[in-house]
Amino acid sequence: MPDIGHRRWAIAEGYIPSGSVSQDHALVSHEAVCLLNAGEKDADIAITLFFTDRDPVGPYRVKLGARRTLHLRFNDLQDPAPVPRDTSYASVIESSVPIVVQHTRLDSRHPNIALLSTVGYAEA
Amino acid sequence: MPDIGHRRWAIAEGYIPSGSVSQDHALVSHEAVCLLNAGEKDADIAITLFFTDRDPVGPYRVKLGARRTLHLRFNDLQDPAPVPRDTSYASVIESSVPIVVQHTRLDSRHPNIALLSTVGYAEA
Amino acid sequence: MPDIGHRRWAIAEGYIPSGSVSQDHALVSHEAVCLLNAGEKDADIAITLFFTDRDPVGPYRVKLGARRTLHLRFNDLQDPAPVPRDTSYASVIESSVPIVVQHTRLDSRHPNIALLSTVGYAEA
Amino acid sequence: MPDIGHRRWAIAEGYIPSGSVSQDHALVSHEAVCLLNAGEKDADIAITLFFTDRDPVGPYRVKLGARRTLHLRFNDLQDPAPVPRDTSYASVIESSVPIVVQHTRLDSRHPNIALLSTVGYAEA
Repeated sequence: MPDIGHRRWAIAEGYIPSGSVSQDHALVSHEAVCLLNAGEKDADIAITLFFTDRDPVGPYRVKLGARRTLHLRFNDLQDPAPVPRDTSYASVIESSVPIVVQHTRLDSRHPNIALLSTVGYAEA
Repeated sequence: MPDIGHRRWAIAEGYIPSGSVSQDHALVSHEAVCLLNAGEKDADIAITLFFTDRDPVGPYRVKLGARRTLHLRFNDLQDPAPVPRDTSYASVIESSVPIVVQHTRLDSRHPNIALLSTVGYAEA
Repeated sequence: MPDIGHRRWAIAEGYIPSGSVSQDHALVSHEAVCLLNAGEKDADIAITLFFTDRDPVGPYRVKLGARRTLHLRFNDLQDPAPVPRDTSYASVIESSVPIVVQHTRLDSRHPNIALLSTVGYAEA
Repeated sequence: MPDIGHRRWAIAEGYIPSGSVSQDHALVSHEAVCLLNAGEKDADIAITLFFTDRDPVGPYRVKLGARRTLHLRFNDLQDPAPVPRDTSYASVIESSVPIVVQHTRLDSRHPNIALLSTVGYAEA
């Protein structure tokens, strides 16, 4: 399949609540970036995080094979540093080949969950 | 009415929870792709699903008449294979004529429902 | 202020649940289209609704003054016909001047509310 | 890092509910605009609010440093006037350098929270 997407994306919203009503992995409060590489070449992806009152952190490096998707939780990022909880951040995602990026948050601070999702901003 | 949209779309987020608080069809956890063909020609649509650690599955073939909309649940796809539950996936939607694609999830794992929706990524 | 937006928009998702936990106007289940006319000329807007198995209905005609916003509930549309509940639909919004269109649903079928929102698809 | 985004954005949806189930700052009903300035120059940002039946209010002036993000609550805007509660509005965001804009609402009127988020409309 021909590739689809762009090489440079941004997500201006980011926030991982520290609280959760459940310790079930699927229902822990989390923030994820869904990455799709529909094309025939593997993608080298670099994620940079931006904050309100300190310098950016990154790059976080991720590999995404050809014709694969990865739903990456920001909660799980560790290198070069874990993502702070209860802190606003934003992200820029840069890829060696065109990909599609979608952002999702599951918030389970309260007795029920809330969801949000939106396609990232793609630099044409 | 003149057509509106694009012929190639991608949705990087996909996940059908296996649990639901209700067996009412309208409230069962589901993930849907809303397709609009506003133009005067019927659309032949092919959906391909992408996964984290195996090859893509598809195409799932769908017909959408001129001047019609279809809100298709991924839960209902059967041919060539049902969509696995509790599994991350992504999708590419290709159409013979321009269409508009929007993605919606209703999550009723917990005692209350959560909703998300976003317009897909359109390849210009 | 110079205008911003496009003259032709589509929202592929549409569904008004018939049930609500509250009869409070703000909390009744509803689906809305938020229209912004930031420019200096009044807008004549025509909305056409599309369905799964019958012909489109419309146009619903709406006026939106210069430098004004209107958050229009599909629930309130009456002419040429009310919007059926518990029925999937899609919409195309056409304007005489550039506008911005965002789609929102508040679902209060269950004991708690759920929200979704997304910017419409704009025909470039 | 090179900048990413646009200088002119619009969000057609806006509504701050007056009620909240919690007075915890993180869980009070709020509407926010997430701004990302990934580039190397500081941004001077002007926000104008639009209403249904009166003239626009603004500009609200915000500074956003190079390589910083700001998650600004409309609830907190005071100059030239606070944002009315329980009132529909829309916004246009103009920046001296390219930025990315995403819109989020947390609604805690009911015993549980609901979330929505979407990338704003960017004027190409």
